[in-house]
Amino acid sequence: MRYFEDLEVGAETYFGSYEVTREEVLEFARKYDPQPFHLSDEAAARTHFGRLAASGWHTCAMTMAVIARYVVEDGQAGLGSPGIDELRWLKPVYPGDTLHVHGKIVETRPSQSKPHIGSFRSDTIITNQDDVPVMRFTSIVLIHRRPNKV
Amino acid sequence: MRYFEDLEVGAETYFGSYEVTREEVLEFARKYDPQPFHLSDEAAARTHFGRLAASGWHTCAMTMAVIARYVVEDGQAGLGSPGIDELRWLKPVYPGDTLHVHGKIVETRPSQSKPHIGSFRSDTIITNQDDVPVMRFTSIVLIHRRPNKV
Repeated sequence: MRYFEDLEVGAETYFGSYEVTREEVLEFARKYDPQPFHLSDEAAARTHFGRLAASGWHTCAMTMAVIARYVVEDGQAGLGSPGIDELRWLKPVYPGDTLHVHGKIVETRPSQSKPHIGSFRSDTIITNQDDVPVMRFTSIVLIHRRPNKV
Repeated sequence: MRYFEDLEVGAETYFGSYEVTREEVLEFARKYDPQPFHLSDEAAARTHFGRLAASGWHTCAMTMAVIARYVVEDGQAGLGSPGIDELRWLKPVYPGDTLHVHGKIVETRPSQSKPHIGSFRSDTIITNQDDVPVMRFTSIVLIHRRPNKV
């Protein structure tokens, strides 16, 4: 297991990639974000998107899919997240894109009230196949501290 | 259509509600956030969640579903969002919960560079059936200005 004590400020991680399919973009949008520019090329052509673009929340979900697989395989003792700061959708995400998820630890902090828990802040940047940043955010993540040996 | 000129700082909107089902919580988690506490009651019981809890990104998606249906029906001339500030997951969301989505416009701003576009910031709060806030964020939304009559 990886614990709070294993985290280092400045450490960078490449979490992996995600292929964006047209089918999944439409499926997510129909269920969770049925605005016209997420549902058809025709409607999107009348906006700055230009053609069918993924819901920003779908990009968040695809990003989490990549991170979750990584931390579960890596055995990180994560306890969920209290929140996200400065989430920005920088460029549209299109069907056929490949997203790449990068993280950098910018702060670690032991909990004041709970001695078995710590937290860290991570700058997360998502780039596409052309190395263009399409989304970024800073996440706050809770994590177990290494248990004391008895 | 509702345009930038129709927005008023301080205006509050109740967007509607969403029923959280166990089936959908599991489906979203398997696809996008397969951390143990989003996949089973047993694993969640070993964390502060206590029992199976929805992915925070799923709560975002369900919130967007409520808002998107409202703005599409309301005919709001929205153009998507450049981002979100201070997203906080305040309390766990459980299968069986009913989420209620509330918004309040806190700022409106005409675009400096694009005369046909404006933006606004909206504080969004999601409460459950017990009126307990479970999530909040501030969204930035782009919207068309009212076209000039010729």
